[in-house]
Amino acid sequence: MADKLPLAYEHVLEPANLRDLNEPLIDHAEGQLFLTQAFNIIVEEVLCKGTDVKQKVCHESLRSWLSLRLAETTFFFFISGHPRFFNQQFAGVDYHALAGRFLTETLNTNLFTYEVAPVFVLMEMEVLRGLRQLVGWTEGDGIFCPGGSTSNIYAMNLARYQLFPEVKSQGLYGLPRLAIFSSPESHYSVKKGAALLGIGTDNVIMVKVDDGESKLCSLSVCFFQGAVPFLVSCTSGTTVQGAFDPLDRIADVCDKHKLWMHVDAAWGGSVLFSKQHRHLMKGADRANSVAWNPHKMLVAGLQCSALLLKDTTNLLKRCHSANATYLFQQDKFYDVNLDIGDKSVQCSRKVDCLKLWLMWKAVGSSGLAERVDKAFVHVRYLVEQMKKRDGFHLLREPEFVNVCFWFIPPSLRGKEGNADYQDRLAKVAPTIKERMMKQGTMMVGYQPLGNKVNFFRVIVFSPLVSQKDLDFFLNEIERLGDDL
Amino acid sequence: MADKLPLAYEHVLEPANLRDLNEPLIDHAEGQLFLTQAFNIIVEEVLCKGTDVKQKVCHESLRSWLSLRLAETTFFFFISGHPRFFNQQFAGVDYHALAGRFLTETLNTNLFTYEVAPVFVLMEMEVLRGLRQLVGWTEGDGIFCPGGSTSNIYAMNLARYQLFPEVKSQGLYGLPRLAIFSSPESHYSVKKGAALLGIGTDNVIMVKVDDGESKLCSLSVCFFQGAVPFLVSCTSGTTVQGAFDPLDRIADVCDKHKLWMHVDAAWGGSVLFSKQHRHLMKGADRANSVAWNPHKMLVAGLQCSALLLKDTTNLLKRCHSANATYLFQQDKFYDVNLDIGDKSVQCSRKVDCLKLWLMWKAVGSSGLAERVDKAFVHVRYLVEQMKKRDGFHLLREPEFVNVCFWFIPPSLRGKEGNADYQDRLAKVAPTIKERMMKQGTMMVGYQPLGNKVNFFRVIVFSPLVSQKDLDFFLNEIERLGDDL
Repeated sequence: MADKLPLAYEHVLEPANLRDLNEPLIDHAEGQLFLTQAFNIIVEEVLCKGTDVKQKVCHESLRSWLSLRLAETTFFFFISGHPRFFNQQFAGVDYHALAGRFLTETLNTNLFTYEVAPVFVLMEMEVLRGLRQLVGWTEGDGIFCPGGSTSNIYAMNLARYQLFPEVKSQGLYGLPRLAIFSSPESHYSVKKGAALLGIGTDNVIMVKVDDGESKLCSLSVCFFQGAVPFLVSCTSGTTVQGAFDPLDRIADVCDKHKLWMHVDAAWGGSVLFSKQHRHLMKGADRANSVAWNPHKMLVAGLQCSALLLKDTTNLLKRCHSANATYLFQQDKFYDVNLDIGDKSVQCSRKVDCLKLWLMWKAVGSSGLAERVDKAFVHVRYLVEQMKKRDGFHLLREPEFVNVCFWFIPPSLRGKEGNADYQDRLAKVAPTIKERMMKQGTMMVGYQPLGNKVNFFRVIVFSPLVSQKDLDFFLNEIERLGDDL
Repeated sequence: MADKLPLAYEHVLEPANLRDLNEPLIDHAEGQLFLTQAFNIIVEEVLCKGTDVKQKVCHESLRSWLSLRLAETTFFFFISGHPRFFNQQFAGVDYHALAGRFLTETLNTNLFTYEVAPVFVLMEMEVLRGLRQLVGWTEGDGIFCPGGSTSNIYAMNLARYQLFPEVKSQGLYGLPRLAIFSSPESHYSVKKGAALLGIGTDNVIMVKVDDGESKLCSLSVCFFQGAVPFLVSCTSGTTVQGAFDPLDRIADVCDKHKLWMHVDAAWGGSVLFSKQHRHLMKGADRANSVAWNPHKMLVAGLQCSALLLKDTTNLLKRCHSANATYLFQQDKFYDVNLDIGDKSVQCSRKVDCLKLWLMWKAVGSSGLAERVDKAFVHVRYLVEQMKKRDGFHLLREPEFVNVCFWFIPPSLRGKEGNADYQDRLAKVAPTIKERMMKQGTMMVGYQPLGNKVNFFRVIVFSPLVSQKDLDFFLNEIERLGDDL
């Protein structure tokens, strides 16, 4: 019958179509049974087996439940919650955060207006306030973004808008060429953002932050060539080496030249919880904006990325707003400043604050500080053990919880002078990585950097890691690489 | 002891710090108990009570569990899964999708490389292929984005890059002024995107799509004034009225002028599942890109937003890539084309495909089609009932599942000629909405549009809705507004 409905609905409804209008398409009892079974499987297979060091990091047992019709051989997961997942800046599991994520998914609301997310609008404000306080700001603004790249890109857009508010309506036409300063080890989102914003990657000027003179010199060259620098993007915790830019010194330069200072602390921001290590970000309070991803070191779960602003002039909303009348009606009965959606370039926006809020409340600031401190202690242990063994060569002493090193297999030891040494060394990490992935024993990343050939980068911060896992890590690298 | 650790680690570790290195900070048994309790509360309070029509849409009983330290009076949730949540384009619950979301949250991986998300990289490709097939494409590309606004903005960036590849490195400097065509009822993300990309909101030219001549005329004016149009952003399912642009006619214009045709089908895309209603998007296969949010009508859960591309030249990756060597090593042992991260402007990217994949597999294309068809039948019923009652005035016959109407309270009926009629009518919807929110009986949105004063927009598509809920809706509007 339904097929016969004319397009414009200019008819009387057929009784046959009406019969089932009172039968929803979802059976709650059946659905809840499925969900409960799924939950039990998730706990058993992912949280129990998946985090058990006796099990592989690479996991296949969800196959029967999902019965994916893709190539069978590729059907495996890597369990980021496994204590031997050292691959990236996400690892581990926090059960409070995970409970918050389950609740977020079930409530399935949206942060654009207060009316559909009253608690979460206030909760986001509260969490942002707490994070800002750690930066050292008693006032300010902020928003959760879908990842640190977006936070960095928002900062660029805000800096540009503050200097040239007309860019919002008129675009870049008629404006001088703009330039951004950053460091060679900054995150690639600075370039991605420059491309997206119409500024161009060539206008991101990379200066070594250890060389104050060359930064100032570059600034002068830039002004001379007619480009207007408007932003310096510093990094607290670079992706590969975990290095921290000297924020106080950069702030001096930014003050002098009236530049927006942005701190990409997506990775390193969590040191602010630690009394012992927060000095690494000394000067962050002098910045205009800080990007910080609690989904990394704090294990809040992807995605949880805060952009924090010192601004108190509603810059975020002025820059991003479009004043859609269907969402942001001005004649609502509550304070319409609580409709925070127009601060975002997104329309629908996930609730990313609840998981962090719940974990923070459960563990406390001191508990989060303890995790950060313990990660540093673990790294210290790992570094000391590396120094005691042959074959582990550090790139440099770690500042943070990234440990970058080459494994020199026995056949290459003492052969540094050989012509093919670098070429052969470059092949070691990929080969070991291939073997570990195929055997599923652990996960760790490698990369080249500048003229340095492939080296391993082990990231140690998961609250699930123990000393035994670090010993295992070293033994396993040796086992997998000893014949190379 | 930890407090005494010097900054540069140039010391021997203190034995006291080592003692607890084998004790992870997370207690799995305790954590899993908490998670299980949370799960049981979520099922009981949100999924059972929250979707029960006898309960309020506004919900307070999670308070004791969360014990939020914010203003007590504001501690309430709106349950988007409640059958009487008609407020926005998200509502309802699908248990398969929800199970997929729980698994996604627990695995907590990241779509940037194949090595950390092997199944999900393939699954995303498979889901995108399925969605493209419904558009009518046998080849192409695509990516999941954090919301439809981002999908629309990506399309703009791709269109610009295709026409002027040098924009990526050099920015907009030296390029002519660019212009975008869209319609007045298009989503506000078109303007937000134009601002972000440095194009400027003034360069978004709004043309009425019903007037082919004025569109062509505007194009001419645009060329004449030196601006280069590069994109037409059409809408399939406008946010307020649910209108569909005539894609075939727009495609003719785009063909003639060699313009990128983008279809924002974030809301309306799901009609493609329905044999009966897919004609609304006839011509979509002629577009270059389609944005489609399965988190809306398909109830996949926020966020689930696909950008689909006809392109087969790797445009997405060429436009967005930054080739970070620490992620996208070229000497991996698997096909590095499976490292899809560089197609995105994001770095970390959530897995948004699993929930849709699982639901699609469980319900089938026919099940999803049935949901779409039933929503149209519900809307038809609602419209017929409105016509039978006094006081309900439709703005126009709905094309889709948005029903826009004024409720005329008894005191205003027959007073259309009065000078204060429009002013008084404008206050009706906000007053009724305030009452319904405070009583928590249901949720529905209102807005003004152009010279039309505040009207209600009821969105009917949740698979939980039944005829009784629609009768309740009408009765409740009358009950809340009869004294106005």
